[in-house]
Amino acid sequence: MTILNSINSPQDIKGLDLPAMASLAEEIRELLINSVSQCGGHLAANLGVVELTLALHYVFDSPQDKLIWDVGHQSYVHKIITGRREQMKTLRQFGGLSGFPKVEESPHDVFNTGHSSTSISAALGLAVARDMKNEDYSIIAVIGDGALTGGMAFEALNHAGNEDRDLIVILNDNEMSISQNVGALSAYLNRLRTDPSYFRTKEDVETILKRIPGIGPNIARAAGRFKDLVKYLMVPGVFFEELGFTYIGPVNGHNLEELIGVLKNARRMKGPVLIHAITEKGRGYEPARRDPGLFHGVGPFNIETGIPIKKAIRSYTEVFGDFMVEKGKTVPTLVAISAAMTLGTGLAEFAKCYPDRFFDVGICEQHAVTLAAGMAQAGLRPVVAIYSTFLQRAYDQIVHDVALQNLPVIFAVDRAGLVGEDGPTHHGVFDLSYLRSIPNMTVMAPSNENELVQMFTTALTLNGPVAIRYPRGVGLGITVTEPWQPLPVGQGNLIQQGKDLAVIGIGRGTNIGRELVELLAQHGWTASLADARYLKPLDRKLLSQLACSHRYLVTIEDNVLAGGFGSAVLEALQEEQLQVDLLRIGIPDEFVEHGKVDILFEYLDMRPEAIMDTIINRWPELVQPQSWELLKFGKS
Amino acid sequence: MTILNSINSPQDIKGLDLPAMASLAEEIRELLINSVSQCGGHLAANLGVVELTLALHYVFDSPQDKLIWDVGHQSYVHKIITGRREQMKTLRQFGGLSGFPKVEESPHDVFNTGHSSTSISAALGLAVARDMKNEDYSIIAVIGDGALTGGMAFEALNHAGNEDRDLIVILNDNEMSISQNVGALSAYLNRLRTDPSYFRTKEDVETILKRIPGIGPNIARAAGRFKDLVKYLMVPGVFFEELGFTYIGPVNGHNLEELIGVLKNARRMKGPVLIHAITEKGRGYEPARRDPGLFHGVGPFNIETGIPIKKAIRSYTEVFGDFMVEKGKTVPTLVAISAAMTLGTGLAEFAKCYPDRFFDVGICEQHAVTLAAGMAQAGLRPVVAIYSTFLQRAYDQIVHDVALQNLPVIFAVDRAGLVGEDGPTHHGVFDLSYLRSIPNMTVMAPSNENELVQMFTTALTLNGPVAIRYPRGVGLGITVTEPWQPLPVGQGNLIQQGKDLAVIGIGRGTNIGRELVELLAQHGWTASLADARYLKPLDRKLLSQLACSHRYLVTIEDNVLAGGFGSAVLEALQEEQLQVDLLRIGIPDEFVEHGKVDILFEYLDMRPEAIMDTIINRWPELVQPQSWELLKFGKS
Repeated sequence: MTILNSINSPQDIKGLDLPAMASLAEEIRELLINSVSQCGGHLAANLGVVELTLALHYVFDSPQDKLIWDVGHQSYVHKIITGRREQMKTLRQFGGLSGFPKVEESPHDVFNTGHSSTSISAALGLAVARDMKNEDYSIIAVIGDGALTGGMAFEALNHAGNEDRDLIVILNDNEMSISQNVGALSAYLNRLRTDPSYFRTKEDVETILKRIPGIGPNIARAAGRFKDLVKYLMVPGVFFEELGFTYIGPVNGHNLEELIGVLKNARRMKGPVLIHAITEKGRGYEPARRDPGLFHGVGPFNIETGIPIKKAIRSYTEVFGDFMVEKGKTVPTLVAISAAMTLGTGLAEFAKCYPDRFFDVGICEQHAVTLAAGMAQAGLRPVVAIYSTFLQRAYDQIVHDVALQNLPVIFAVDRAGLVGEDGPTHHGVFDLSYLRSIPNMTVMAPSNENELVQMFTTALTLNGPVAIRYPRGVGLGITVTEPWQPLPVGQGNLIQQGKDLAVIGIGRGTNIGRELVELLAQHGWTASLADARYLKPLDRKLLSQLACSHRYLVTIEDNVLAGGFGSAVLEALQEEQLQVDLLRIGIPDEFVEHGKVDILFEYLDMRPEAIMDTIINRWPELVQPQSWELLKFGKS
Repeated sequence: MTILNSINSPQDIKGLDLPAMASLAEEIRELLINSVSQCGGHLAANLGVVELTLALHYVFDSPQDKLIWDVGHQSYVHKIITGRREQMKTLRQFGGLSGFPKVEESPHDVFNTGHSSTSISAALGLAVARDMKNEDYSIIAVIGDGALTGGMAFEALNHAGNEDRDLIVILNDNEMSISQNVGALSAYLNRLRTDPSYFRTKEDVETILKRIPGIGPNIARAAGRFKDLVKYLMVPGVFFEELGFTYIGPVNGHNLEELIGVLKNARRMKGPVLIHAITEKGRGYEPARRDPGLFHGVGPFNIETGIPIKKAIRSYTEVFGDFMVEKGKTVPTLVAISAAMTLGTGLAEFAKCYPDRFFDVGICEQHAVTLAAGMAQAGLRPVVAIYSTFLQRAYDQIVHDVALQNLPVIFAVDRAGLVGEDGPTHHGVFDLSYLRSIPNMTVMAPSNENELVQMFTTALTLNGPVAIRYPRGVGLGITVTEPWQPLPVGQGNLIQQGKDLAVIGIGRGTNIGRELVELLAQHGWTASLADARYLKPLDRKLLSQLACSHRYLVTIEDNVLAGGFGSAVLEALQEEQLQVDLLRIGIPDEFVEHGKVDILFEYLDMRPEAIMDTIINRWPELVQPQSWELLKFGKS
């Protein structure tokens, strides 16, 4: 690591010659592989942008010039050369370096990202501000070909193409987003890639010419003679040119010399410019190059073999995936939709078994949901599998296209609650709040694998929209009971009857509740424990029962408290005019940082020990169990 | 109305010859103008699609073939010729015909719409279902050029272009969406319009050719000689062709013969087809043709003059617009963003006064919000004015791009609460729920014009995201106090001190509360009345005070009860361990139909009389005022 050790800011790169930069690139790759193999993270994307990032910092002057990284998981190289090399060993750990650009972390990070397709909008916003203030600097948005399929990127391209402000968009075309890229745009980019002077065949041109009114077959035939000219006239990048951008490309995203030349030109150009750079995900590390999907976001792995260090217990995602494959056999109308997360949502096997019933629509959550609505309207049973945090992008479509028409679309809301190392952009802690306020929705959350399967089984019996939200990571390791049975709709599960207080959890909250109840038992209190299972409809009978037989009630959820599960319990108690002293445990009104989920729960005082302390602080009278009977008597 | 009276289903059109259809078109226009002048509604768009709708029903067989109307406000003609002619006089009235396609209303309405840009996704969903079931029918999505700028339309085009299913998209290009159309795509469509055989100039072609590696200046010069060929080679619609669609157009959307010919061809074609039809908004009614923006969505008007029958009191929208113009003078960083609703959000004057600080981004709520985030990150003070229901589409951007970075973006959330005649797709009744669960947000709702101005004044003093939601329509008619003063953050307003019970409202809820308190007074009860002003942060001091001095508390809001204002009050009371018997008045857990706002409030038992009944039912002990002192004594 001779060169890398001397790179403490982007300034240190500017003195390097090309061979030194090439060596630096290799050193960075080594650091990336080492860091991610230990901390987990996004490897393949970062390996793909090493040269591009070096060239950007060579040509531009960050932080004066502004670099915005779309999605942001490809910003490790940028972090390494902007003074954060040493912190790479803390990557994605609590208190350590974020896995995404973060304004609070460095002046070189000018806009926080995490979700896809935001960079061009943000860059245009900066450009407007720059121009209004008569300032002079370059603004560069780096966006992948996958993120470009997201509708808001198109909205921004369309606006930027018309605004005519100086702005550089770098299309980092790595031939796949997370799942294999899909859609016509991808096919178009592929044509640009495979033939830079992309042309239509003579036949195509003739067909098109014939279609033009007033042209007719004569000129079409004549055109055939000019085939070679046609070849050059059909210029590459016409799609982007039509939108108002000057298109440059494709350029080899691993050729530093070529990149630097193109970037220098772009820096001088006026108006919006799009540079099309071809990169290879996972470049320089064979396991990642071979399987960039697996190495998109990966946990710790063995560097030699490239094999992830994996837990033995199956994840909720895997159990869901198996459910879908199995159900696909008997429910011919079952279709599955993914938004560029086929592997992540556990649908890879379903896609393989039922290619005609699987739809990866690209990073297009909005389209995914309304597509499902259309399918459901016409009698299919679509399951839309989207991470909780990304489903936020389809909130309006859930309300307007699915719920309003009461269509039987099933939402498999994966990565709900705290997701851990990906941090605040990715925690799925709002879904209980935003889903339960939508009429016609049924909302469930399993506390174990068995419930997950039972809930999806139930969902298929219902005739309206259903959301089932479940956490990232492994389940409890229990066996799924066969044959699969639906759960009674709107019924919770009283797990244990106690008397001193009642704990009711939902999803992962139930499991925290279980530990809490055990801890309370060690301290001499007997608590009831219930699993709500349904957020909506809420089990009011169970709630009444608990409220009438206990003076103290604790709700536990891994969602924000504002408008969440505990809030729904409060509403139900209020409507039923039930008096009970309630304590709501959940995510407070703040964005939660990154780090291991357990550490985050500890930080948030959501571990059983901390909850017990909160209970005692809130209800000090509970401390003397002998006083309990008295209190209880006094109430009745 | 000789021909129209004989049209009771689309079948009745198929026997007409062209002159008869032309006469029918005129009769339909007359009916449209009459209906909308009485009921209000979307006039200009419907006048523009008369021939297109007739041609569609002439060529296709609805409901076997499926017509999906994007946005849906242009579906009146479709309604008239699908058996709902007589009901046009009930248009948009409670219990009458909806102003949008509605599955429950007719088998000819196959997918509900209201929000923009959903039709291609829905149509593709239907196409998948059709193909899976081996059925055979045509699916046609009709989408305006404005709706096409919405990102999800692009997501769907991109997917549909790749799926290669039989699907017809009709681009209804009326040269404007609601505000004047914006963006590069619009400019592109304009080029297609003005020169159907759209071509680049010789100079353009040379410039492009020179840019291709390995081509150089020689061939570029040579190309100049083939100028006429070039003209034909640069085929129209290349943008759509690149996305995988077969492009047909432009066709004259008012020429029935041409339309019918094109549609017949399209019906036979395989794969996705895009027909580009040029229409004129407001065609056939001079006032609407001259000012289609005004006649986009209009209240009742005088047919002779085209002048809307207007109320004398200013609307919240107008007061907001004046605020912006005035503040623009002293706050040079103030910028305003609209998503194709310049007129509707009251920003027309601001746009005129400060063209460099006004941005109409098209129907692109997602981009609008992240653009604002970028602007705020770079020191501007953006105000994003979007109707509550449309802001749902930018929920993720509010969370991820604005709130997470705690950026000072101000959301002017117009048309919040029940909007009346536009109905369930347009009611803005979820915003309090979805906004308050987002950390860092400040959320306010004025109960009169004065508060509106004070709240925006306050928002400009804050350093984080602020949402101010206010209803459609007129204010109370009160004068705005000058000079404008900010309101203390997080403080409500105790309007009247009573003793029997306390009423606390937010926004329009406060005004209902005022009437309620007067009504209660007539029946011998004295009630306290408070205006919460802030949903977030909630005024806990005021709440404590009310809870400690009253046994009964009533909250009133025009938002869904689930997770709304009353829910926030419950949460606060629970956290403060305050015991008070609470009644929450608001929108129940259902989608609310269309109709006059007052009628809807009555239907929902949210008029003062009904609320008083609810109060008495809930707390029968209140009926005997003499028992009150006893109860109060019993409590302490």
